[in-house]
This record gives sequence, structure tokens and C-alpha cells, in this order.
Amino acid sequence: MIKVSVVGAKGRMGSHVVEAVNGAADMQLALTLDAADDLAAITPENTDVTVEFTVPSVSLGNVLKLAAQGVDVVVGTTGWTEEKLAKVREAIANGPRPDAQKVFIAPNFAISAVLADYFAVKAAKYFESAEVIELHHPTKVDAPSGTAIHTAQGIAAARKAAGLGPMPDATETDGGSRGQVVDGVHVHAVRLRGLNAHEEVLFGNAGEQLTIRADSFDRGSFMPGVLLAVRKLASDAPAGLTVGLDKFLDL
Amino acid sequence: MIKVSVVGAKGRMGSHVVEAVNGAADMQLALTLDAADDLAAITPENTDVTVEFTVPSVSLGNVLKLAAQGVDVVVGTTGWTEEKLAKVREAIANGPRPDAQKVFIAPNFAISAVLADYFAVKAAKYFESAEVIELHHPTKVDAPSGTAIHTAQGIAAARKAAGLGPMPDATETDGGSRGQVVDGVHVHAVRLRGLNAHEEVLFGNAGEQLTIRADSFDRGSFMPGVLLAVRKLASDAPAGLTVGLDKFLDL
Amino acid sequence: MIKVSVVGAKGRMGSHVVEAVNGAADMQLALTLDAADDLAAITPENTDVTVEFTVPSVSLGNVLKLAAQGVDVVVGTTGWTEEKLAKVREAIANGPRPDAQKVFIAPNFAISAVLADYFAVKAAKYFESAEVIELHHPTKVDAPSGTAIHTAQGIAAARKAAGLGPMPDATETDGGSRGQVVDGVHVHAVRLRGLNAHEEVLFGNAGEQLTIRADSFDRGSFMPGVLLAVRKLASDAPAGLTVGLDKFLDL
Amino acid sequence: MIKVSVVGAKGRMGSHVVEAVNGAADMQLALTLDAADDLAAITPENTDVTVEFTVPSVSLGNVLKLAAQGVDVVVGTTGWTEEKLAKVREAIANGPRPDAQKVFIAPNFAISAVLADYFAVKAAKYFESAEVIELHHPTKVDAPSGTAIHTAQGIAAARKAAGLGPMPDATETDGGSRGQVVDGVHVHAVRLRGLNAHEEVLFGNAGEQLTIRADSFDRGSFMPGVLLAVRKLASDAPAGLTVGLDKFLDL
Repeated sequence: MIKVSVVGAKGRMGSHVVEAVNGAADMQLALTLDAADDLAAITPENTDVTVEFTVPSVSLGNVLKLAAQGVDVVVGTTGWTEEKLAKVREAIANGPRPDAQKVFIAPNFAISAVLADYFAVKAAKYFESAEVIELHHPTKVDAPSGTAIHTAQGIAAARKAAGLGPMPDATETDGGSRGQVVDGVHVHAVRLRGLNAHEEVLFGNAGEQLTIRADSFDRGSFMPGVLLAVRKLASDAPAGLTVGLDKFLDL
Repeated sequence: MIKVSVVGAKGRMGSHVVEAVNGAADMQLALTLDAADDLAAITPENTDVTVEFTVPSVSLGNVLKLAAQGVDVVVGTTGWTEEKLAKVREAIANGPRPDAQKVFIAPNFAISAVLADYFAVKAAKYFESAEVIELHHPTKVDAPSGTAIHTAQGIAAARKAAGLGPMPDATETDGGSRGQVVDGVHVHAVRLRGLNAHEEVLFGNAGEQLTIRADSFDRGSFMPGVLLAVRKLASDAPAGLTVGLDKFLDL
Repeated sequence: MIKVSVVGAKGRMGSHVVEAVNGAADMQLALTLDAADDLAAITPENTDVTVEFTVPSVSLGNVLKLAAQGVDVVVGTTGWTEEKLAKVREAIANGPRPDAQKVFIAPNFAISAVLADYFAVKAAKYFESAEVIELHHPTKVDAPSGTAIHTAQGIAAARKAAGLGPMPDATETDGGSRGQVVDGVHVHAVRLRGLNAHEEVLFGNAGEQLTIRADSFDRGSFMPGVLLAVRKLASDAPAGLTVGLDKFLDL
Repeated sequence: MIKVSVVGAKGRMGSHVVEAVNGAADMQLALTLDAADDLAAITPENTDVTVEFTVPSVSLGNVLKLAAQGVDVVVGTTGWTEEKLAKVREAIANGPRPDAQKVFIAPNFAISAVLADYFAVKAAKYFESAEVIELHHPTKVDAPSGTAIHTAQGIAAARKAAGLGPMPDATETDGGSRGQVVDGVHVHAVRLRGLNAHEEVLFGNAGEQLTIRADSFDRGSFMPGVLLAVRKLASDAPAGLTVGLDKFLDL
């Protein structure tokens, strides 16, 4: 049984994590902490892996503390920059278990989204055309999504590496319907009540189309990815800081 | 048996019409004419319905001549304006069969596209959100398609008539990915090698989505609509000029 | 303001109704009752419309009592038979407001599903081929869904009325993949973790396809339909028993 | 310039190959042969790669002759068995270029279909549920398609290798709508006028879905794959017999 503690246990995501851990046959819920609680309670003795889902303003501090206590952490909070990641690496190096400490941070825990992005980049060089459509709930403030930009950039890089030129496009008159062009890849953003987070990548050749679509219907969609990360940290994940769920998928 | 003549019989669309008429159990191919041929050969005696699929620059002249000869016509050529339509009405009024002459003109003969447009307008007032995505081959020069604009305008008008306000949309930062806004409806245009002409309309409420999609895979997709129009002209279509395939659908 | 009481207010659906009523600008929550509460508390004085979402075993009794008290009811509980409906009609006739009492019962309150079914039947006669795919969560015990059967029957009836023969199908060898045949229409049922309730209807002609899809992502998807029914009962719905949300849609 | 000869040049597929070769900037059409022509005309001097698209009854003979003449061949004809493949290997070993001769045979040249199959197998172990829907024109005599069976078998094998048990499915009552079960994977076959060859693979976890879809709209969809194979044979493909387009994709 993997002993799992949750930091931010009463939060939107954290409460889902508590539920998911309770539902996993190979895991046992250890401690559940919130804003008012002292992280010092979490130790390598009572916890195998800590899941941290809080807010960007406190997450770095939490991870640094947990690393200093020699606790392995799966971090779901967003807002990580290269600077912040450097501090985490430093904390691991200066911590009690520099050669064994594991910290895992991922911008997206939805396995379907991570696979879609990976497959899209793999497929990119085999098609003349590629476009990305992302669809989200209408309360999202930015467009397009970071995930869609990431996918478009990956497609563009794969096309460039394969020596492909620009995609065919005879459009002469466009009032904005062709979307945003990210490194030569057209990206479209739909905002629709009832949706959560969705991405569709379309590839076309003469006479054929390949479509890869990831749907995240609700926050529960992150839990299979979180549990997968917890299991990896409790088993064969490499020591040090790992960023991105694709690192833990066998692709 | 309905006797059908085809004007523009060797053209891209006309050749499909000849094939479709030959394949219809209730139709008989009468005359097949092309640019060099004299329209005078087509008479009410040898032809029940003429199908005209040529180019915008000659289509009006053809239709006026056929009307003057008292021949019923299904017109598939595009490029019709209110002015041109007025001339057709005048030709019917001054022709040999002012009370019986039938002329039918449609911007789109794909039944799926006509139904999708009709259903989308019907559905519009029941949803908080609606967006239109059209997808075409990459040699199309304009974006979005006229059909998509028509659908968006219909949705907007239906929402207005029902007293609905603007759709929910919290987007603050957008580099163009939200597409073109037609009367308040976001329209996205995809250009992909391998596609022909496709339209998808998305509607959303809390917890639910309705999607209506029309795919036209090739020019053959127009033929069921052309044959339907021929049958209507040969039976119960009203006299005079009729515009739009939806007029012939029992909706 | 429409005064709305909820029977079954703590149940899975009832709690959503309470939330939806609280969120509606033109409604006011009156009484919220549960199994232990006395329905006699609900009167035409304190309540304009009562929403009843309980279980089949008690729903008929609840509706009969409310009708005897002269209260208008929107019923979301399932399991209605012709016999039960007859008893409701009788209760209305014998109640205090035989000419004004309104009771509304619907097997499905998802507007998208009701519209999809309606549009599918409308479209049916214009296509050579039609098939139905329904997709649900894997804990559903019956397959295909009642909604899919209803849609298939409607398509079959529309084809028959239009004089269409069997759909083209050259299949000679099939190990079961062609699905269940309902009145000549093939129906396929997918069971997938992560899904809730979805239906896709596919229509095909030479060169073209029409797709109509309804997605119900969660129980919240019923609320727009429930609120619509409440508003109809509070305004221009006809007196007596009405069955089916399509009766309240302007189609 | 790669010199390409085509055997079966007037056939349904062969004529597309001739057109595709003529349209490729890096290829030159060498000889075009048909049933009546002598294969001896094709030599390593006048041809770099021969494309063979005929019928199963003559294809083996053609390939053996071409191998005996030391000509590299891309074979698109179907109907290959292990026995036939063994004879090709033998012909290569006994031919004039045993260490350099290249023969490539593929059951499916649609890149989108080959990628979809590959990605589906890769994704399989990360999801609780997986089902396959294939959709074809209604003149296809078998159901489900060989490609769908292949995909289902690949998914099943990947799940087994990862130690996954049966998928969740509470279905108690089913009149056949749940489709054909291939190694535990449900496979559904749709037959619809207007379609050609399509496959959709659905994966589900709590709250998320991954969809991978390949559309082959017409015979032209095989050409990008054929050209890719020709280029591989003219460059870095290994000597000997290679079966399956996935071997030539960098995955």
C-alpha cells in the first residue's frame, strides 16, 4: 500500500484527490492538510508520496519545505516558471536525500490530453495540412489554451524538422475566421456553455483525414493521471525533478 | 418518366447530372447541350425539366432564353443577385406560360447542408451558446463560406427574436483564435487537404451539447438535391421562381 | 416571479432543481419537501409550479395528491406507463381545477436529446441510409437506450411514410458488429467510462452525410429543460396532462 | 528523380498511381503496363521502383517475375498469405540481387489508418474502456473490417500485457446493440451510403475521453502512402521483404 498525503485537501482539486486515493486499491490515505496546517507533520515515515494541489502563490514554498523534509511530491498546482523549477532542483540537491528525492510537476494531468499532444506531434510530418481546434467553457479568460499553443508549436517543429514547407491555403479573403496562426499552424478556440476542456487536432492529405481528440469532461479527468504519477514515484520514477506527464507514459 | 435535358452537360457538375439522371429509375435523359449548342433545341415537347449547370457569366442568359421558350428549369449555377432574380421573374411573366412556368434556383443542392442550416436555426433559441465551424479544401479562396455566414445569421436572428442576449464569453486575451464574429456568432474556418465542404454547428447549455454536422464529400453530394428539385418541378412545385432547396423540403 | 416548490429536494436530481431554481432570475424557491414531509403543505397559494423528482414507486401517488390539491406539477421521475398516465388524467378531471390544472411529464428533459430526436425524424426521409449510435457510462444495465430505440422507431416510421424501402446493405458476413436492428434501423451501443448519455444519428446519401449528436454530460443537462417546463406551466401551457418536452418546443 | 513503373496502370488503383507519380516533383513515370504487357520490359536500368496494383490471382506471379528480374517492387494488391509471402522471400534469395532486392507489401496504404491503429495500441493501456467503431460504404460484404479487427486485437494485447482486466460493463439486457466482441473489445460496424472507409477508436477514463479517427474518403487516400513507400525503397529501406506501412513510419 502506498501511503499518500494530500496538501490542499479541501480545495477543488485536492478534494478529488482525497476521493481518488480512497478509491484506489493500492493506496492508503495518510495525512490531509490545508492552508492552516503545518507541513512538518508530513514525514517520510508516515507518507510515501504527497500530492500538492494548492494555488501558485504558495505552491513553491510548500514544495521547497516538503523537499527539505525529504518527502516525495506530486505537484498539480500550475504557474511554474523556469526560475521556480530551478529552486526546486536546488532544494532537492540541498535536501536530506539528494540522490533519491523525487518531485514531479505537470501542467496537465489529463492522460487523454497528454497522449493527444504526443500523437499529434508524431503524426505531424505525414500530412500536408494540420489545424488545431480547442473548445472550453465560456468562463475561461484566455484564448487559445496553453495546451493548444503547445500542440501547435509541436506540430510546427515536427514539420520543420521533416523539411515540410507551409501548408496549402489559398485563402484570399478572411474576416478573421481562419483563427490564430501559431508557428504557421492555425488554431481555433470555441467557447461553449456545457463544455469543460477539449482539444481536436485535424490532419489532412489528399483523400484522407486523421483526427485526434481529447475530452476532459470535469476535474475528475485529472485523477487517473495523478494516481499514475503517485505510483511512478512510489516505484521506478527517476530521482530528481521530473516535469510533464508524458515522461511517465511508455510511448 | 420525367424527360430531363442538361445544359452544361460536359462540365464538372453537368456530367454528374447526366450520370445521376441516367441512374434514376423515374427519369429519362432528353438532350445534353454544351457551350456550342443552341438552346432552341430544348422545347416543352421534348423536355419536362432542364437542368442548367454552367458558369455565372452565361447562366442568366440561358435561363432567360429557356423561360422565353416555356421550358421549366432547375438552375445549379451560382452567382445570383437580386437584380438577376428580378430579370428571371420578368422573363417568366413575359413568357409563353406566365401562370405555369417554373424556375428553381438554389445556392446549395446538398440536402445535408440545407437541413443542417434549417435545424440550426430551429435549435438556436434553446441554447446559451452557439458557434459555427466550417471546413473546406485548401484551394477555396474565401473564408468563411457563404453557407457558414448564412447559418450564423440565421442563428443570430432566431436568438434575437427569442429575446436572448449575448452568449457567455469571458475571453479577455485573444490573438485571433476566437474567429470571425457574424452578428454575434463566432465562425471558424478550417482549410485541410482531403476535405471538400463541411459545416458543424455547436450548441451548448449547462451540461449538454447539440451538434449538427453536414459533410459534402464530393460533387456527387449535390445530385440527390438536384433530382429532388427535378421531381418537384415535374409534379407539385408552385409556378414562378423558387429560390432555395429548403422550399422543396417538407420541414 | 414564479413560485416553485420541489418534491424530492434532497435527491440526486431534486438538489439540482433547487440549485437551478435559485439561479433563475424569474423564479423563487417556495417549499422544498422530501420523503418524510407532508405534500399537503404545497398549495396553489404558496406555489405556482411544483417540480417532482422522486422514484417511480412513489411518484404516481405524489402526482395524484398534488393534482387533488389543485397544484400544477412538472414531473421528472421516470417509469410512467399508459395505466399510470390514465390515473393522472382522471385525478385532474376529478380535482378542484379540472379545466385549468396542468401536469407535465417527460421521459427526457435534456433539450439537446429532444431536439436531436425531432430533427432525426424530420431528416429521415431525405437519406438512403440512417444508423443510430448511443454512448453511455458503463454502469447502465440496458442496451440500447430507450431514447435510441425511440429515435430508430421514429426514423423507420418516417421512411415508411415516405415510401422508402430498406437501406442499402450488402453485408454477408457479420459476427454481430452490425448491431441491433430496430424496425430496420441499425442501432449501436457503446459503453465507455467517462461518458454520461450521448446519442449520434448518422444519415447518408451519395457523397454526403448528415450527423446529429446530443451530449448530456451530467445531470445538470436536465435543468434547462426543467426550467423551460416550469415557465410553460406558469404561462401558456395548455391545461391537462402533457407528455414529452417536444410539446413545449416551438418546432 | 526516382524512375517509377506501374503494373496494372489502367486499373482502379493503378490509374491513381500513374497520376500521383506524375504529380510528384521527385519522381518520373517510366513504364506503364497492363494485363496484356510483358513484365520483362521492366528492368533495373529503366526503373528504380515498380508499383504493382493488380488482382490477388496474378499479383504473386508478377512479384516473383519482377524479383527474378532484380526489380524493387511496392505491392498494393491485397490477398497475401504467409505461404505467398514465403515464396516472395524465396524469390528474393534466389534472384540476381539477394542482398539488395527490396519488396514492400502493405494491406493498407492509408497513412491515417496506419497511424490510428498504431496510436490506438499505444494508448490502450492507459484507459479503463476502449471500443472500436468502423464505418464503410454499404456495398462492403464483410463486417467488421479487417482493419477494425486488427485494431481491436492490438488493443486487447496491449491491455493484457499491462495487466489490465476486463473493461467495466454492467450491461444485462442487450438485443445485439453492443456489437461484436473481439478479444474482449467491442467492435461496431456502420454501413452508410456516402461513406468510404473510416475507423474511430474511443478510449475512456473517469472524466476523460480520447478519440482517434481515420477517414479514407476515396482511393486517392492511398497515394501518399504509396509515394512514401516508393521513396523509402529508393533510399534507406532495408533489403528483403517488408510488410506493413508502419515499418516505414518513424514512430
